[in-house]
Amino acid sequence: MSGVAQPGMPLVLVMATANHDKAAEIRQILGAAGGVRLLPRPADVPDVEETGDTLEANARLKAVALSAATGTPAVADDTGLEVDALGGAPGVRSSRYAGEGATYADNVAKLLAELDASPGRGGPRRARFRTVVMVRFPDGREVWREGVVAGTVAETPRGEGGFGYDPVFVPDEGDGRTFAELRPEEKHAISHRGRALRALAEALRREAPST
Amino acid sequence: MSGVAQPGMPLVLVMATANHDKAAEIRQILGAAGGVRLLPRPADVPDVEETGDTLEANARLKAVALSAATGTPAVADDTGLEVDALGGAPGVRSSRYAGEGATYADNVAKLLAELDASPGRGGPRRARFRTVVMVRFPDGREVWREGVVAGTVAETPRGEGGFGYDPVFVPDEGDGRTFAELRPEEKHAISHRGRALRALAEALRREAPST
Repeated sequence: MSGVAQPGMPLVLVMATANHDKAAEIRQILGAAGGVRLLPRPADVPDVEETGDTLEANARLKAVALSAATGTPAVADDTGLEVDALGGAPGVRSSRYAGEGATYADNVAKLLAELDASPGRGGPRRARFRTVVMVRFPDGREVWREGVVAGTVAETPRGEGGFGYDPVFVPDEGDGRTFAELRPEEKHAISHRGRALRALAEALRREAPST
Repeated sequence: MSGVAQPGMPLVLVMATANHDKAAEIRQILGAAGGVRLLPRPADVPDVEETGDTLEANARLKAVALSAATGTPAVADDTGLEVDALGGAPGVRSSRYAGEGATYADNVAKLLAELDASPGRGGPRRARFRTVVMVRFPDGREVWREGVVAGTVAETPRGEGGFGYDPVFVPDEGDGRTFAELRPEEKHAISHRGRALRALAEALRREAPST
């Protein structure tokens, strides 16, 4: 089996995400892992509607469309915050929990309100961040990986870093700070996206992707 | 807030598990983290029936009963393998998937048979190992943490290390080897139980547990 990139030649990947915060994290983490060159999505390639009902389905929708449109390997991820007391919500709807076009603050406010209204309120507010990441090659081959981190949803937002639900997510593998209170390298070391992308980089280095 | 252990004095914890493989891992991981002394469950304290329908509920059942019986802080964990194609099974029933008293091999065989029979057979066989761990103090205080690792279920068992479903679990954050093919320290670095127990050790060092 040969690798997907030639020795000494970085693998060029087009990024599906239109979210600048997410793109910045992908650059930081995959950039540090090495062997990959990341390009933004061309401006003339439209965004894909995330109609899948799982993270896997949405990542695949985005990667397949972009790889087909560009003739280039494409990387896409989808991420959800799965809260036990809300039956796994917001999950695949995390980025639009408070509606299409919702801001991070809107989504966080809705999450805290739903938890205040949930039957289990006052409980430990257990949750997991989960990222599924996929590279799709123009010939149809796919390489995917997943990363998960467990934690709790804080009562109130804390911290200025990160994005999305980071101000209310306290990782179990931490010291009580929210993801938004961690330095980026502290967050990436244990985060769902850090784990998924480092595993992806290792897989791309190591194996010929199978279908 | 004061810590749960005095400086220089290890915290003594009685282990609820009757599973020697699990106890060995708890000793390896919590022992390496330091600050904790682990004792086996006294022979005259009976095992608790795991009647909970979640990992959290079972960990709590075990820790509460043992702490009450011994008047000593007790540590208990519950672990499940959650396979997407099986709707999250075996999950909380992982240790008795093939029936009460099932061997590891029985459970693995049932898992592979169920996957062969599942509608999504041939798919990526996505799964996650999840450990919930709890320390219960005689005064009712609790500290709990969780660890998760994502991966896939292999077609056939490989490797002699680990226990349980380890021979068929290929972690995404690895190089293609199953958990049973990894050295213990390689497994613990990324495993559900490693993450949960290191987080627990950090929490015990750091904080006075709240209810």
